[in-house]
Amino acid sequence: MPIVNITMLEGRTEDQKRAATEAIKEALVQHCGAKTENVVITIVDVPTTNVYMNGMLVSDRRRNPG
Amino acid sequence: MPIVNITMLEGRTEDQKRAATEAIKEALVQHCGAKTENVVITIVDVPTTNVYMNGMLVSDRRRNPG
Amino acid sequence: MPIVNITMLEGRTEDQKRAATEAIKEALVQHCGAKTENVVITIVDVPTTNVYMNGMLVSDRRRNPG
Amino acid sequence: MPIVNITMLEGRTEDQKRAATEAIKEALVQHCGAKTENVVITIVDVPTTNVYMNGMLVSDRRRNPG
Amino acid sequence: MPIVNITMLEGRTEDQKRAATEAIKEALVQHCGAKTENVVITIVDVPTTNVYMNGMLVSDRRRNPG
Amino acid sequence: MPIVNITMLEGRTEDQKRAATEAIKEALVQHCGAKTENVVITIVDVPTTNVYMNGMLVSDRRRNPG
Repeated sequence: MPIVNITMLEGRTEDQKRAATEAIKEALVQHCGAKTENVVITIVDVPTTNVYMNGMLVSDRRRNPG
Repeated sequence: MPIVNITMLEGRTEDQKRAATEAIKEALVQHCGAKTENVVITIVDVPTTNVYMNGMLVSDRRRNPG
Repeated sequence: MPIVNITMLEGRTEDQKRAATEAIKEALVQHCGAKTENVVITIVDVPTTNVYMNGMLVSDRRRNPG
Repeated sequence: MPIVNITMLEGRTEDQKRAATEAIKEALVQHCGAKTENVVITIVDVPTTNVYMNGMLVSDRRRNPG
Repeated sequence: MPIVNITMLEGRTEDQKRAATEAIKEALVQHCGAKTENVVITIVDVPTTNVYMNGMLVSDRRRNPG
Repeated sequence: MPIVNITMLEGRTEDQKRAATEAIKEALVQHCGAKTENVVITIVDVPTTNVYMNGMLVSDRRRNPG
């Protein structure tokens, strides 16, 4: 019964989300013995101002990629 | 001190959220001995493209409910 | 399709968890129109050193309840 | 490798988010021995209808602060 | 910058976790354009008393699989 | 009303958690205008087999730090 929550930058299309969630489900079925009907995945889209990584907000890094 | 996070499909009204969170608080007070002032609940609304369940995205199921 | 995550102090019994999750499920069915089979709830038990609330760790409050 | 998720009321500016995440990173480096490059923070902004605290929705409290 | 949190039943081995997380990372790189170094995955292991799904706790279902 | 969840490697002491949570609370009060009594922080401790970062499990990196 894996419950997966993905927080990622907004902008991915429905096609990208479909392909990624399908592959993640498959990974949990193949490697962890989960059943397809017990895998639940949610995606929370956030703007670049809402992710801090490698010492700065992603919004700042994109303005100053150097 | 239960902290509850609910991720659900967008579209519920404030009245629905009020009734549901009130009932969830009550459940934690009655059955787990929590105090009302220590129950915190957050709701994250997501679109149907962002929930994968029973082997497909909810957005796909709604287009093909069969 | 509500996905509920509860983080709470360890020590609740299975009976308490059963009663609370059943009531929470019911709250989401009654007030938000969810279907029983689409409600998923997970509980993460944490020690008192791992919850900070009202200006201090719960472990500190229990030592100094005054 | 602390992963921090913050759920808070929408409305904070990018400057506030930058200052807060920088200080949170620093707290984890100084007090928990984390390395800057291993601290990841995400923020999920939610409306006042989506936070229940102290026995009511924040949206209700703001209408009735008394 | 996808941040993935997986809550699942305890008992999976390190080999299973390695294979699953590697495949999940790959899914996000291939389908969502993420960079390997920006994918962070955490796993929270919980006992069967802590997951409610399909109308009952998993611990209850295992005692009464019929 | 910021709700903060921290997932980090197990092993930090209560003193470290106290200092870190206090500083995080202060960051949210100073930079985001939060009130002390509305800041709630939970910590979930996980083993090194349960964190995947920079392309591998932390447990694997510690065995092969090169």
